Amino acid sequence: MQRYFLESQENVITAENAYHIKTVMRMKKGDHIEVCYPNKRCYIAALTQVADVIQFQEIKEIISQNKLPEVVLIQGLPKSDKAEITTKYATQFGVSSIIFTEMTYSIAKMDPKKDDKKVDRLQKIAIESARLAHRNDYPVITYQKSISKISYEDAIILLAYEQEKTTTIKEVLGYSQSDKKIILIVGPEGGISPVELDFFTKLGAKSISLGKRILQTEIAAIYALSVIDSIYE
Amino acid sequence: MQRYFLESQENVITAENAYHIKTVMRMKKGDHIEVCYPNKRCYIAALTQVADVIQFQEIKEIISQNKLPEVVLIQGLPKSDKAEITTKYATQFGVSSIIFTEMTYSIAKMDPKKDDKKVDRLQKIAIESARLAHRNDYPVITYQKSISKISYEDAIILLAYEQEKTTTIKEVLGYSQSDKKIILIVGPEGGISPVELDFFTKLGAKSISLGKRILQTEIAAIYALSVIDSIYE
Repeated sequence: MQRYFLESQENVITAENAYHIKTVMRMKKGDHIEVCYPNKRCYIAALTQVADVIQFQEIKEIISQNKLPEVVLIQGLPKSDKAEITTKYATQFGVSSIIFTEMTYSIAKMDPKKDDKKVDRLQKIAIESARLAHRNDYPVITYQKSISKISYEDAIILLAYEQEKTTTIKEVLGYSQSDKKIILIVGPEGGISPVELDFFTKLGAKSISLGKRILQTEIAAIYALSVIDSIYE
Repeated sequence: MQRYFLESQENVITAENAYHIKTVMRMKKGDHIEVCYPNKRCYIAALTQVADVIQFQEIKEIISQNKLPEVVLIQGLPKSDKAEITTKYATQFGVSSIIFTEMTYSIAKMDPKKDDKKVDRLQKIAIESARLAHRNDYPVITYQKSISKISYEDAIILLAYEQEKTTTIKEVLGYSQSDKKIILIVGPEGGISPVELDFFTKLGAKSISLGKRILQTEIAAIYALSVIDSIYE
């Protein structure tokens, strides 16, 4: 069943979602859809009016079984279309939000003139990917110019660090509160710089290994998200 | 350091690899590279001649720490460029070989006239991805027209099945020999058909859940490979 993320608690659908229901899916009055509100609650709903504005009636709540803790991904800005790959797949693998940030070894640079458009595009990819994954919510995507402007409070901080060969995610999370927010830091193509390693270590970050192979930056978070999911499943 | 997969045990490099060393990387006599032989042993080597044929001398063996058991991915043929995404990332996540096969719900169809070219292309992607991941070997990519022509002997068979909500990979592998080959089956976009479910179940396949979200077919194997890696790490 098609799932739509609504921007308010009201029983009307407008704009792109309405276009999708009416013109792309060609749905009729009485057809069923899934709607998710900003409070992350989702319902099966029946369409009661299909026009430029779509109206519907809730039938039944969909109970989410997703018990993954909140995982915030801080991703060193990667090259070209790799931010899109990270956004698409990290969303499917349950990430709560993604902060792209320019790190020392980022080859790609942020550009205040274009960043808003890029974030908008990534946000759309995240919403579409969350819809396909049947998530009850979607991750919010943001850009931050510097790692020093991000909040790291009240979280277990995991730093994916290439030189870390032994400490696993399981070992770090095994000793922690299970409902605590997790911040996962992944460097850009060139990895984490010594200054960044020092910065994150002082914040209490634990360096973790992502297995024995070298993973490309755009997909490294997926390894961590899979393992975190399997720990909490 | 650049890593090259050689097709024989001899100390010469020809064809594309030689072109890469000489023309793309512009290396000189005395420069170091990494070479991996078909027996999966890799060495740091010094170039002793850089011409159309490149010669080298081994300096030191590179000991692999990859303890992942053999994992064969049987992937229901997906649409468009998704086979490339699976090949690229499953290689990075340690898959031993990939067999693409046409399944009941495959929208993409195999075409004997074009299949050889497609397999060649995917094989190149796998080799390049293995090189970047610093693997000692690369997965062999093949096409099989039908699931009935594949060998399932002497393996633990894991079937990624959307309707399976509870059994996890950990539960299945926890009771098995750790050195046994694992066959991982992932359906195409439409999933596994009832006939296929029956076929695999009769072979002794265990249905497993890949977490609480719906993963797209091209990336589903990555979840399983991450969890298998974290179990054996």
